[in-house]
Amino acid sequence: MSDSSSLKGRLDWRYAAKKMDPSRVVPADKIERIIEAARLAPTSSGLQPFEIFAISNKEVRQKIQAIAWNQSQITDCTKLLVFAAWDNYTAERINHMFDLVNEVRGFTNEGWEAYRQKLLTSYPQRDAEVNFQHAARQAYIGMSVALVAAAYEEVDSTPMEGFDPTALDEILGLQQRGLRSVALLPLGYRDAEGDWLVNLPKVRRAREAFVTEID
Amino acid sequence: MSDSSSLKGRLDWRYAAKKMDPSRVVPADKIERIIEAARLAPTSSGLQPFEIFAISNKEVRQKIQAIAWNQSQITDCTKLLVFAAWDNYTAERINHMFDLVNEVRGFTNEGWEAYRQKLLTSYPQRDAEVNFQHAARQAYIGMSVALVAAAYEEVDSTPMEGFDPTALDEILGLQQRGLRSVALLPLGYRDAEGDWLVNLPKVRRAREAFVTEID
Repeated sequence: MSDSSSLKGRLDWRYAAKKMDPSRVVPADKIERIIEAARLAPTSSGLQPFEIFAISNKEVRQKIQAIAWNQSQITDCTKLLVFAAWDNYTAERINHMFDLVNEVRGFTNEGWEAYRQKLLTSYPQRDAEVNFQHAARQAYIGMSVALVAAAYEEVDSTPMEGFDPTALDEILGLQQRGLRSVALLPLGYRDAEGDWLVNLPKVRRAREAFVTEID
Repeated sequence: MSDSSSLKGRLDWRYAAKKMDPSRVVPADKIERIIEAARLAPTSSGLQPFEIFAISNKEVRQKIQAIAWNQSQITDCTKLLVFAAWDNYTAERINHMFDLVNEVRGFTNEGWEAYRQKLLTSYPQRDAEVNFQHAARQAYIGMSVALVAAAYEEVDSTPMEGFDPTALDEILGLQQRGLRSVALLPLGYRDAEGDWLVNLPKVRRAREAFVTEID
């Protein structure tokens, strides 16, 4: 970690690979560290209101590809990550996470228990769609941490929203588990020969059109 | 970058600091690299539908603190980042980004122009709230990349949703700029003496309760 500019180097290097090389396999330890990074991602009130499906199965990936604009990375990657958010915040889910915290820390705390009650008396009463939208944002944190971790591991990833979420939920049986798919992240290696995007410069708004300083 | 496990080390080290030490100032070059990481974050169709406000001004931060549950990090940090998403996708905003891509790359491309038309004939016609929710998720990608970059720089950050967005939009004049605040990220250094959370173990669901493998 001595060269602290190197994360920027990795972020410059990364891009949303449009073509991946199925003959190049991402080592399992790299995939594991990418998933672990997503697991360590912070979320609102620590609820971690999402799950990850890590898919290598060919038939399942072909089914997903068919409902995702036929994007080739879905079958050419080594591992397809699907980020699925809770469809609602329920008392059971909130209690599970607060109980887990107490169990890991080995004590209960008055302030923490008051905070639990605050969530229990507000979240479950809200519209399920409001809760899902909130959970989906937390899933995006997880996906984002994963894609930075992938870049750090020099693994390509392509964040994708272009799929039919209802069809994907059906393929993975998400509804029965109280989940809704929100994003895909194939992990693999770029096929530089076949990718129209790989040699094009990354385009971002200039800093002055993106950041407002209030000093 | 030889020790590829070190990003995990940084993610273990990071936590949502509850108390920051105002006497310890984050160097400007570190803040710059954190903001740059957010600028390089990927977004849907490359639209970058958000902006960052980087605030050191004391009075402005005091005003924000007052509408954010009085959280002390807002005034004790070195720099407060506010992530504000586009309130809508307009033809002007979409064209601006597609034009910028053409300008930077120095050519126009038929497929790219067809994709522009696809967005122009769908996004602006959608309900503004749907577009804002979509843009807000992209702002979360930016915030998430920033918080990983902060951890990499050994800078503390505390992602925050606990504020009154309407009041914050008013303080920063966001409505006139077609923006809506979605998250805060104070950057500073933990005050280990005064922070009840710093020595408590990080709690996450176990991998098996978080990841489903489909092989």
